[in-house]
Order: sequence, then structure tokens, then C-alpha cells
Amino acid sequence: MQRSIDVCLSPELIQQHDLAGKIALVVDVFRATSCMVAGLAHGVKTIRPVLEVEECRQWQTKGYLAGGERHAQKIEGFDLDNSPFSYMADDAKGQKIAMSTTNGTLAINRAKATAKEVLVASFSNLGATTKYLLEQESDVVIICAGWKGRPGLEDILFAGALVKSLSSTHENLEDSTHLALASYDAAEEDMLGYLQRSSHLKRLKTLGGKDIPFCLIKDQFDVVVHLIEDELYIK
Amino acid sequence: MQRSIDVCLSPELIQQHDLAGKIALVVDVFRATSCMVAGLAHGVKTIRPVLEVEECRQWQTKGYLAGGERHAQKIEGFDLDNSPFSYMADDAKGQKIAMSTTNGTLAINRAKATAKEVLVASFSNLGATTKYLLEQESDVVIICAGWKGRPGLEDILFAGALVKSLSSTHENLEDSTHLALASYDAAEEDMLGYLQRSSHLKRLKTLGGKDIPFCLIKDQFDVVVHLIEDELYIK
Repeated sequence: MQRSIDVCLSPELIQQHDLAGKIALVVDVFRATSCMVAGLAHGVKTIRPVLEVEECRQWQTKGYLAGGERHAQKIEGFDLDNSPFSYMADDAKGQKIAMSTTNGTLAINRAKATAKEVLVASFSNLGATTKYLLEQESDVVIICAGWKGRPGLEDILFAGALVKSLSSTHENLEDSTHLALASYDAAEEDMLGYLQRSSHLKRLKTLGGKDIPFCLIKDQFDVVVHLIEDELYIK
Repeated sequence: MQRSIDVCLSPELIQQHDLAGKIALVVDVFRATSCMVAGLAHGVKTIRPVLEVEECRQWQTKGYLAGGERHAQKIEGFDLDNSPFSYMADDAKGQKIAMSTTNGTLAINRAKATAKEVLVASFSNLGATTKYLLEQESDVVIICAGWKGRPGLEDILFAGALVKSLSSTHENLEDSTHLALASYDAAEEDMLGYLQRSSHLKRLKTLGGKDIPFCLIKDQFDVVVHLIEDELYIK
């Protein structure tokens, strides 16, 4: 059964993609979706992605932990920052988390408006996500969260990796998809080195030494993360 | 003198780029800016890029030749289609042309709203354009015209080629710029073969056998094309 795979390089380009009937897969490697996958794989009950910090605080009063970042910094009064290690910690287990992120949440919200199904993924569950998509009949659109509307190389590398994993079943017809594949082919052997040429990484690496390499490790978790109603779960 | 170079992957992302004080360079390899460069290098007097077919017809009544395409087809009643060979023909010499194109014109119009200076370029004047930019003090933003708002691989390859040409003088800080460079590095030895994997090319190549290879030949013309008021000239 031939399906297609497409890559949306930035949430700002989402209007170019018809998501109806398709699986939208949102990726924000540094670091929202890496946190989400890691947390849920370690026993977090659900994660609710929200757009505004204030909305996050409201969920906090209803018993949710509040997590997230603005400008790559922890938010005042929040329980969790944006390190995947915080989401894997013991005090997050069994909890519901309301998470505000600059780019990931925006991409998820735009995707859920029209897609048949929304997943989030990161390198840490690339294999499990690939396996799940192989079992579905739907076309796939990968939405790269990027940074303030600009394409982010790390998200595009993830997209390239997934396009490559699905290359025998999912047809790749679009230029943006070729672009993602070309950059992944160039980076595959040393993604961290490749990303060190990126301004984005230069900024982020001063803020958390072990997070960045962690976010690039493939297949750490055998989970698929689904958006159901407005929360993320492992199904 | 250190300057910067940045790549805007689609006109839809232009709001992410601050063009103030910068040189905006618009590229639509297939085929608007290839036509413009070829025509002006062969003696066309000026080319006025316009957005609407009707506007083009109005300029036609004022003595301009009308040129352009919609959905990669010649427009009824127009003098010129969108083949660079039409713009190099004897009957275009010394003429003013009003040109309507789907993507190139849109990108030019968005660029001229804020940039200090607008150029158009294509592979055919890559060397001359590089030389000109080396002589200027301004930062450069390459705006890829793409196709209906989606990134076009051929434009991104041009961007990568220019980023590479300017790598010793113009700092490359952005992820989209790395992406363009990676795709050009992968494609440089055989751009046509590389593009044959692109849907865009699959569509275009049925419409004009010799145009596509022509548009990929570097350094055919030693001209720099400037937008002055609303028309394109060789200065």
C-alpha cells in the first residue's frame, strides 16, 4: 500500500499542507517533544500542551504540574523546566503535566485543527513511531516546530531520518522532503557535529550541557505518543 | 569586513527576516529570474515584474511586451511565455517587458517593501552577482521564490551556491542557510540529476525540454540585475 510522506519546514508554512485525513507528526527536538516522549515513557500520566504561560498556571491550580520554557529559560513558579531529565524524574511519575513551549505547542495546535490524527515524536522514539506509521494506512506530514517560525535544523534532521525509515512504503514527492533527506544524509554519522554549525545549537548548548546530546540519541523509548482530545498519551 | 548571509526558504517566511538595510536577492530559477537575467543580458531594455495578468495587459497597451506564465503555461494574448529563449529572441531586444509570474513577482514585491536594495539573479549570473555582493558593505538575504508558497529545491540550490561563493566574507548564522548549503553540496556535481528527484522538476520538464538544463548553467552572463523603482535593469 503506497502512502506519501511530506515535511512542513516551519509552522508558518502549515497552510501549504493539506492535513485532512493525514497523520500529522509534530517534532521539536530541542526540546519540547523530546521532553514529552521521555516523560511519558517514564510514567508521566498525560501532558497537555498549552500555548500561554498563564493557561499553564491555571492548570497548575487544578493539580497539574506546570512545565515549559520561554526563550529557553524555566518559567517562574513552574514545577519543571524544559530538560528531558526533569520529565523523567521520580516526582513527575503518575502526574499530569501542563506544558507551555514556544514552538512545539504552536505546531501541535495548528496540526490538530485539521489532521486526522496528531502524534509527537523525537529521535528517542523514532523506531517505535516508524513501526506505528508503517501499520497505518494514512499519509504522513511531519511538522517541524523550528524556532520562532524559522526552520530548525535539528527538527529537519529528524524529519529526514523518518523519511528515510519510511522510504520503501511512503512516497516522497515534495522538495521540502528531499531537502530534509539531504541534510540527514549529510549529518547522519555525526549529528551533534553537524548541528554545532547551527546558530540555534550555539545558543542552546550554553543552557544545558547534557540535554542536547540526550535529545539526539535514537530509539531510547518504545512508545508512540498520541494527542487525544487536548492531551498527549502513550496508547 | 564581515557581513552576513541568510536564506529565506519561501516568500511565506519573509516576515521572519529583517530586510532593513540589507540587499534582498530574489531567485526563481524555474523560470522567472532565469528569463529576466537572460533577457536583460541580450538587450531587453527593462523588465517590470507585476503580480496580476490584468496589470500586465495594461502595460501591454502602453507599449510593453507582455510576458509570463500561470501554472507554467503561456498566457492568452501575451507576447512571451516563460522560456528564457523567448526573452533572448531578436524581437525582445530594446523592448520593455511587463512580466507576470506566479512566484517570482510575489517574492520581488515582498522584498522591495523593506530591503535597502533588491536584485534578481539566477545560476546564469551567479559569478557576476557574487562579485557585486563582495563589493557591497551590506548583509544579504536570498529569497527563494519557490512554488505556490512551498520551498523549491532549485532555488535553494542557487542559494546554497551563493552562500558557498561568499563563505569567506559573509557569515552564515542561520539554520536555513546551512540547509541550503547542505543541499548544494549534495547536488553540485549533478544538479539536473539531483533535481530529477523533485516533483517540481517532474512537472516542469514535460513543458519545455531545453529550458531546464539552460536554467542550471552557471555564469553565462556577466550582468547584475537591479530593481530600480519598479523595473529591473542592468546597471
